[in-house]
Amino acid sequence: VRPLTETDIEALAIGAAILGTGGGGSPYIAKLRCLQELRRGRAIVLVGVEELEDDAQVLTIGGIGAPAVTIEKLSEGNEGLRVLKCLEEFGGRKIDALISAEIGGGNALEPMLTAASTGLPVVDGDGMGRAFPEMQMTTFSIYGHRSTPAAVSDEHGNVVLFRHTVSEEWFERLARSVVVSMGGTAIGAEAPMPGRYVKRAAVPGTVSQSIRLGELVLEANRQHVSAVPRICKQEHGVHLIDAKIVDLKRHLRGGFSVGDIALEGIDGHSGTRAHIVFQNEFLTFERLGRIEVCVPDLIVILDVDTGHAITTDVLRYGQRVAVLALPCHPLLRTPEALAVIGPQAFGLDGVEYRPLPRPNGDLS
Amino acid sequence: VRPLTETDIEALAIGAAILGTGGGGSPYIAKLRCLQELRRGRAIVLVGVEELEDDAQVLTIGGIGAPAVTIEKLSEGNEGLRVLKCLEEFGGRKIDALISAEIGGGNALEPMLTAASTGLPVVDGDGMGRAFPEMQMTTFSIYGHRSTPAAVSDEHGNVVLFRHTVSEEWFERLARSVVVSMGGTAIGAEAPMPGRYVKRAAVPGTVSQSIRLGELVLEANRQHVSAVPRICKQEHGVHLIDAKIVDLKRHLRGGFSVGDIALEGIDGHSGTRAHIVFQNEFLTFERLGRIEVCVPDLIVILDVDTGHAITTDVLRYGQRVAVLALPCHPLLRTPEALAVIGPQAFGLDGVEYRPLPRPNGDLS
Repeated sequence: VRPLTETDIEALAIGAAILGTGGGGSPYIAKLRCLQELRRGRAIVLVGVEELEDDAQVLTIGGIGAPAVTIEKLSEGNEGLRVLKCLEEFGGRKIDALISAEIGGGNALEPMLTAASTGLPVVDGDGMGRAFPEMQMTTFSIYGHRSTPAAVSDEHGNVVLFRHTVSEEWFERLARSVVVSMGGTAIGAEAPMPGRYVKRAAVPGTVSQSIRLGELVLEANRQHVSAVPRICKQEHGVHLIDAKIVDLKRHLRGGFSVGDIALEGIDGHSGTRAHIVFQNEFLTFERLGRIEVCVPDLIVILDVDTGHAITTDVLRYGQRVAVLALPCHPLLRTPEALAVIGPQAFGLDGVEYRPLPRPNGDLS
Repeated sequence: VRPLTETDIEALAIGAAILGTGGGGSPYIAKLRCLQELRRGRAIVLVGVEELEDDAQVLTIGGIGAPAVTIEKLSEGNEGLRVLKCLEEFGGRKIDALISAEIGGGNALEPMLTAASTGLPVVDGDGMGRAFPEMQMTTFSIYGHRSTPAAVSDEHGNVVLFRHTVSEEWFERLARSVVVSMGGTAIGAEAPMPGRYVKRAAVPGTVSQSIRLGELVLEANRQHVSAVPRICKQEHGVHLIDAKIVDLKRHLRGGFSVGDIALEGIDGHSGTRAHIVFQNEFLTFERLGRIEVCVPDLIVILDVDTGHAITTDVLRYGQRVAVLALPCHPLLRTPEALAVIGPQAFGLDGVEYRPLPRPNGDLS
């Protein structure tokens, strides 16, 4: 158990954006809100996955919707509190801890806002170890937890409870349509999980991992050196290319930001062309007609100078970027997981997932 | 208090379709289900509005969605039971009676199905005295009852609770998007109302009125005479035209059946052309460039031979129809009501509501 400092929050926002692989929404607004809470004297306390009581009630809280919308449509601030209260009221039990379903992007910080206003601890872990576009794409859901009853709330104060859905896909479909009607983004919370399940199904340590990643970027910035090789070393990643964005297609479809990016190599990679396809998050990296990296491994686009992540909503023509690939957590590589978050789940027919090696060459 | 017979149900279905003014969904499937329940020995008991206890919990149950969809997408049968249980569970109080929010069309019969399986009585009254396309268009909502918490369920078993919405329009918007995602139709129930409120805000006696209308049509059929003059006499209505449908535009937009009908007069009306515009229900009757009747008064299209109502979903080229106008209930004519269900609420700019005279020339 440790309280987070302002420095931790600054680093967390940077690291979470990197693990967002382009999605998860920009952490910027949520970061400012967390800093404001800390300056008001409120605490955000981190608790390890292994420290949870077996029968603790653990609630996921996070934003749902198109990242492009979050830039202009601000949240009101009490959305998380409203969904928490709705689920407590319905379930008749108090919530003991909060957890992010998605460490990548702004959703790393959403539970912390509600933690600050309720005093509840935040679990050091999440349900993706990155970001994904759909709600059933969490290890919580993949390994058997049912998301419903779940609740969503918007900035106006509307609260909708998904009392029961017959499948995770139905939950995704119904919740998505509510969120689109709410204006494209909302805050949601899924059915509380017992601590014993979180210990088994959560991707552990991802809040700390994000903070370490952010610290590393800040340190490199202070030393005026590139953060890219340090990130690759710490995360066992691959530096795929340094490139300029030479074309960009991006549009909203059914509440998602979808599109693709054309890259032209710079510096040591000049003359090389590459493509990245995204649905909120980067899905595939293709070079010379061959897909070199695909989901669920992480494709990360960093500003080539600062080492900060560039999310899909702020991509633009002419940006100079470094593209990295980071291996995902083994919980995302099982057959059950690949059925939900592998390339086929994104309609990428014919794309075969070849896992990036993890530490010590581990492909599991 | 009186139990309904199979004959009552047959007549009710005919009368409710007439009050549906083209919408509310076809009562056919719901009628068959009600008859099946009665033949199984279950009871459907009607209770007068004035017989309700002041603190009785009265629940509206009805179908939501595009009438055109209900022809092909059958309900499973327990949707009403699921929304009732969800609201009982959430509110912590038992429901004492059911009421239709909309007597027009199939929704007259939806509460009866749930009544048969629970033993709860059905109130002789409703929230429209006809049919309307949107959920906030009920006297319950107009005179101050808030629809939320409300629940919807589909044939798969999905149940969504609208815990709280900041306005009736937000409820309509969010519920509509859920219903569209459920495939275009679902069964919904709004927040339980106290009996004392139902006594004040319900359009009273509309179940009995529908049964009488249906009996009158059946009686005219047996005597091989037109039901039209009898309906006009009983309902203080106007026989506008007998005509042939010479053109028809109908499409689905945002979960609604919208379109317009071109009519060419027959028999005593030959040479006259007229137009009817609809959004689930018939909104305006226009002749010689002048709107003669508009919402909230009832525009009714009957088969010229049988006197049975023709709903928007079964309109077709070449049908020979009688068009009637019936005055709506005074509860629909107040300034509060017209703001929600008058012509402007349907985007009919410049159309002024001139009420049809009620019995004794009453225009209120």
